[in-house]
Parts: sequence; structure tokens; C-alpha cells
Amino acid sequence: MSKKNAFYAQSGGVTAVINASACGVIETARLHKKEIGTVYAGRNGIIGALREELIDTSKESKKTIAGLRYTPSGAFGSCRYKLKSIEDNRAEYERLIEVFKAHNIGYFFYNGGGDSQDTTNKFAQFSKDVGYPITCIGIPKTVDNDLPLTDNCPGFGSVAKYVAVSTREASMDVASMCESSTKVFVLEVMGRHAGWIAAAGGLAAEQAGDPPHIIIFPEVAFDQKKFLARVDKTVKEKGYCVIVVSEGAHYADGTFLADAGTTDAFGHAQLGGVAPTLAEMVKANLGYKYHWAVSDYLQRSARHIASATDVEQAYAMGKAAVEFALAGKNAVMPTIVRKKTKKYSWTIGEAPLSKVANVEKKLPKGYITRDGFGITPSCRAYLEPLIQGEDYPPYKNGLPAYVKIKGQLVPKKLKESFSE
Amino acid sequence: MSKKNAFYAQSGGVTAVINASACGVIETARLHKKEIGTVYAGRNGIIGALREELIDTSKESKKTIAGLRYTPSGAFGSCRYKLKSIEDNRAEYERLIEVFKAHNIGYFFYNGGGDSQDTTNKFAQFSKDVGYPITCIGIPKTVDNDLPLTDNCPGFGSVAKYVAVSTREASMDVASMCESSTKVFVLEVMGRHAGWIAAAGGLAAEQAGDPPHIIIFPEVAFDQKKFLARVDKTVKEKGYCVIVVSEGAHYADGTFLADAGTTDAFGHAQLGGVAPTLAEMVKANLGYKYHWAVSDYLQRSARHIASATDVEQAYAMGKAAVEFALAGKNAVMPTIVRKKTKKYSWTIGEAPLSKVANVEKKLPKGYITRDGFGITPSCRAYLEPLIQGEDYPPYKNGLPAYVKIKGQLVPKKLKESFSE
Repeated sequence: MSKKNAFYAQSGGVTAVINASACGVIETARLHKKEIGTVYAGRNGIIGALREELIDTSKESKKTIAGLRYTPSGAFGSCRYKLKSIEDNRAEYERLIEVFKAHNIGYFFYNGGGDSQDTTNKFAQFSKDVGYPITCIGIPKTVDNDLPLTDNCPGFGSVAKYVAVSTREASMDVASMCESSTKVFVLEVMGRHAGWIAAAGGLAAEQAGDPPHIIIFPEVAFDQKKFLARVDKTVKEKGYCVIVVSEGAHYADGTFLADAGTTDAFGHAQLGGVAPTLAEMVKANLGYKYHWAVSDYLQRSARHIASATDVEQAYAMGKAAVEFALAGKNAVMPTIVRKKTKKYSWTIGEAPLSKVANVEKKLPKGYITRDGFGITPSCRAYLEPLIQGEDYPPYKNGLPAYVKIKGQLVPKKLKESFSE
Repeated sequence: MSKKNAFYAQSGGVTAVINASACGVIETARLHKKEIGTVYAGRNGIIGALREELIDTSKESKKTIAGLRYTPSGAFGSCRYKLKSIEDNRAEYERLIEVFKAHNIGYFFYNGGGDSQDTTNKFAQFSKDVGYPITCIGIPKTVDNDLPLTDNCPGFGSVAKYVAVSTREASMDVASMCESSTKVFVLEVMGRHAGWIAAAGGLAAEQAGDPPHIIIFPEVAFDQKKFLARVDKTVKEKGYCVIVVSEGAHYADGTFLADAGTTDAFGHAQLGGVAPTLAEMVKANLGYKYHWAVSDYLQRSARHIASATDVEQAYAMGKAAVEFALAGKNAVMPTIVRKKTKKYSWTIGEAPLSKVANVEKKLPKGYITRDGFGITPSCRAYLEPLIQGEDYPPYKNGLPAYVKIKGQLVPKKLKESFSE
């Protein structure tokens, strides 16, 4: 049997370090040329496999591949495309097999969150059933940090660092002007279902009473009265109030704050996110001057302030995925295991994909203070190691010199095209 | 005559490097102890002088003062408080004289934008008229880069770098996902009247066609039809469209896009800024999926990604202010003069405050492309040197270790208090 090629794809929302995982995959595969042929990367993720748009990574220089370690976003393209269940769309799975067979692909590395790991797992089972066994390894990735079985997810540490740094900096700005200007500042961060990113804002505080004064988690139902009372108390005591709010903040009935049913003059749903909604709530009820910020994609692409720990772990996950494949493992995902040492240290573990899929790890109750507005010491102890270290990209002309791939596609071998 | 003390105050919106100017003032004054006594800093700017709340900077360690160089925001507090004209509120000017006299202050360093330099100038004249001559030196500061007579303003280079870096990073994020997700991304930046900061977003592009694809300046009246056509064309050609918009974007009749008269369900004016307004306009007319970000204070406090050139210039302006005072100059402001060298270099010039006041330097016509949506090569040539170099702060525990002053106040000598 000729040696098999590998297929690697990026999936879902990209991060500051997903390319570091790609770098780990490709560099490690290149060290094992006897066992692994070429690494093909899906152009725009799994869509690339369905369309037979495979990027030939062997055409990329050693320097470009090394540069992926410090380049944010998805260098090969990612997608929001979830394969349906086999029952609902068997044709998609068959198409993948067809494409993989045509290009002699024997390894499938899927770099994504819970949904993607679910797909990887289903595909592993399907390929076995139809007699085209392929080694399927998941590589964890998500800024939301919501995957189970791994201590944390590559991508999260860097967004956490960005949010903690930005909260500290913006808080200093507000503090220095609150006497005569803005009294309330609201920073909206990502995290639709889990409050990990919002929690990271809490790291900005060096000691009790430091900003942020209020964190709003999706894990805690929003109570407007309690919130306003806390804002008022904070402004009266400290002169200003800094709030970090998760985009997933919602009322007890599940309504998102950002979808509070308001419409603009055209009858469109309220444009603003949760930050402007909260800011206006404060203004309307307490009269304080406000400012708000929504970092949106800036937070997850901010490679310029990535966590060195995160970069290292993202690379290690990619490397481990290839090593797992070579060791004959299948339908597993490397994980980050926190060691029980006094000083933070970690090692690589392994989780079966079947147990990763469709489980969302939320902030444990013990990580949120009793009042619902802050993080506990145990939350801080968990988060702090993940933002350690700076890993600055090289700069050219005042800007980060991120790499671009050539992205040369492998000639198609199949006649039929596939429309997903 | 005993040697005189100095008064230093920060004014208006703070920046990532205004404390570097403070550092320049205090370190330079400390080198001239024979001529200058203690440097007092106004607590919360000029309000501190009116209230006789003077921070004794001699109580701050050498290390703390040195740390100001890498600490964002206004360490002594700033304020949005403009002295009225002498005719309208002579009592304020008299109060300043009274406080300065009580504390033997013979030097006044005012670190701010156009309004502040206007005040400094008026005060210099007033003090002469009433027979309490005091050396008044302005120190330029503004993220808006709108002061005349100086090539650029300390504070701008760092916000420009932040915006350029963030635009590049977020654009890569959008590019990697546009096939199946967000097609239009809008980043809102500061600059109510002048488009310097929005223009800096243009530096993210390495070559023609690179994002940002559209920049919206306050200098160009917004034309919805032309804008939508350009967005549509860009998405069709490139697959996605990145827009950097100044908060001051407005229609031909002067109406700000952000104040387009829309109200929410409570009848409040539209909360969102211009970014969500534009994003919704795109969605409603073209149907493209969008995301938007508003950096707000994050952009001007982002010391973690400050421009080394900016930091150096901010420090130099503070240093020069003290040297000007010692050289017997009055009612002037040090300026940054770009030398006519091939490689960027600069030196320190001087401008009379009377010519700085109340002039707002907008983006010259030749800096905006004919279509109104981009920057010209001459704009790029102007901007590029200002974002050169990285000047990272020290980190502790994963976060920038910014300094905090003790802020010890000098005992009051006046019986009466003053309510501004």
C-alpha cells in the first residue's frame, strides 16, 4: 500500500492561534515523510473537501509554514458549515470518501470546536462502515473555551489576554477622566453561551475593588434592578464603573439583552449589541454619562497580543494530532491536561471524540461570586496561567508581518462537482 | 526671588502616551533643581488648580516617574473642562493666579489639545496684565491629530498603529470565513471632525485591493447610494468588504450617520454608533451578513501596541516644554517638525500659542482618493513613519505592569474653596 496523504481543515470561527495548530500539523507531518505523504488543506474548511478544492501545502515554503505560528485567522480559509447527520445527508459523507479516495487520503485532521468534533467522529464511524477506513483526529479550537475533557481550548488564552489587557487599559482611561466626563464604561465581549471570555475581563483587577466592577455572564440571569443598584453604588464609591458583558447576557426568560425587542425607525430589530443596550439602560435610569465598546472580531484575531502559553498549546495540539495518527489512534482528540503542580504546568492527554461532541462546558458555579457580578479566586487561579507570556509577531513597517499562503490547489481528479 | 515651582496639568481626552509627556516634564525638571522647585500636577487637570488640589510629584519615586513613559491614560487625572473667556468668567483666572501665588508657582505646563492651548494662551496674557507673570508653555496632545503648526500630535501615532493593526487582523479574520459567513465588516474609529484616525486604517493594506476596501471620512459627505454600490462591487469581486468609518461620518446636510434620527422602543435616540448603522444599512439593502466593532476607549488607551515613534515624541515634547521655559520662552508650544530627509526624521520646533488655538487641522484633500473612499500615496507617506516601532510595556502575570502614582496632595494654603 502506498503511503497515504493527509487532509487538514479549519472549521468555525477562527482564532489568533488556529494557524499555530496548522503549523504543528504540517511541520510534524513533514518530519514523517516515510509515513505521511502530502498534507492537503481544505480551502475554506470542509467545504474544500466537498468541492475537491485541496490546497497543496507542499508548495508552501518552510518559512511560510513556520510563519503560520504567528499569523492569526484561518490561513487556508474556514467555514461555518456543519455536516448534517448521516441519515439526513448521506451524500455528503459519501462525497468526502470519494474525494479522499481520489487523493489517496488516509488521515483526516479536523481543527474546530464541538460541532466539528462531532462531524469528525461521525465520519470516522461512517468510513469504517463503508470500508474506507481513515484515521480521524480532532484538534481542539475555540475562543469560547467550551469543549469538555480538555483543561482549556487553544484560542481562548489569547482572547482572554486581549480582553484582560483591554479592560485594564480602558479602565485606566475612564478612571482618569471620570471626575468631569464618562462615568460608566461597558465592554462587550464574545461568548454566546459560556462566560469564559467575560470572566477573563476580571483578570484586569489587581486587587479587590479594581475594575472591572461588574461582569455579566450568560450563566447568570440578568436582573436589571440589581444591576442598576450595583452600577450606582460603584459610581458613588469609586467615581466610575467598568462593566464587562458577554454577548450572551440574557434575562431570566432567556431573552438576550441584545435582542430586547427594540426596533429602529425602519422597523428593523435593534442594531446595537448588548453594550449599547446596557449603556442606554444606565443613562435612562441613572443619568450617568457612558461610553461603550464592542471588540467583535478584533478580540479573536488580535495575534499582536496573543498569549505565549496559548500559542505553545495550539502548536502542541497540532503536533500531537499527527503523532496520535502515527501511533494508530483514531477518533480521538489531543487535550490539554493541567498538572497538579504548584507552578502551572501541563501535558497532553487524549479524549475520545464521542465524548467531546455536543457537550458545552460552561463556567462552573464556583467560578462566579455569590452576587453574580465577579470571578472567584478559584476562577482566577484557573484563568491566570492561560494568559501568561507574550509572543509578539515580527513587524515590518510598523505592522505585524503576517504570512500569506500561495494556496495552490491540487488538480481535480473527479469529474462531477458537488454543490453543498 | 526664591526659585519657582511648576504646575503641570493633563487636559481633555487621554491617550496612550500623555504620561510619557508628563515623564518628560518631570524628569527634565528634576535635572534642573536649581531653577525649578517642585513640579505640582493638577489632580484631574485644571480642576485641580481651581480646587487647590495639587499632587506633589516630588513624593513619587524615580521608578514611578520613569514608569509613566509606558503607562497609558492620565496618571494625574484629566478633565473635560474649558475655562470660559476672561470676560465671561474672570473669577476663574483670578483663582488660578491666587493658587499659583500661594504655592509659588512660576511655570505652567498645559498638556492638551487646541482648547487647552487657547486657555494657556489667554492665561499667559491675563497673568501679565494682572502683574503675576508666569511662564506658560503648552504641550501638544491629541489622538485626533488636529493641531496646526505641528507635523503631528503625540497620541495620534499610537492610536493610528492600533487601528492599522486591528484592521489588518480583523480583515484576515473576515477573509478567511467570508465564503460561508460574514461578508461585510465595519470598524468604527474615533475622529469627530477630522479623519486622521480613519485614514490610519488604510495603512493595513499592503497593496492595492487589500482591505480596508472603504474608508469613510468626516471630510467627505456620505453618499449612501455610492457607498452601497461600492460595498456590493467589493463583495462580488473580493468575496468580502472591510469598512473603516470615522465616528464623525455625516451626510451632506451635516447629520451624523450615528444620529440618523432612529429611536428605540422607548423613544430614546438610536443607541448604536455609526458602525451598527452602516452594517444595518448594508443588510437592509444588500442582504449581506455583517459584523461590526467599535473600539472606543480601547483604541486610545492601547499602550500595549503603542508606536515607539509616538512615545519618543511625546516624551520629547514634555522635555522640550521645560527647556523652553528655562530658556525664557513664554506662550509657546513645542512642535514636531518633519525634516525633508529621505528617511523619516524629525526635530523640535516651536509655535506661538496664539496661532495654535482654535484651528482644527483636517485631512487635506490630496490625502483622500478621488472616489472619497481611500487614502492616497501621499497620505500613506505622511502616516507611515508615525506608527513605526514597537515600545512594549513590561508585563507581570500576563498583563502590562503599568504604574500608579501615590498622588499625595500638597496641604492647602488658601482658606476659601472654589466651585467651578
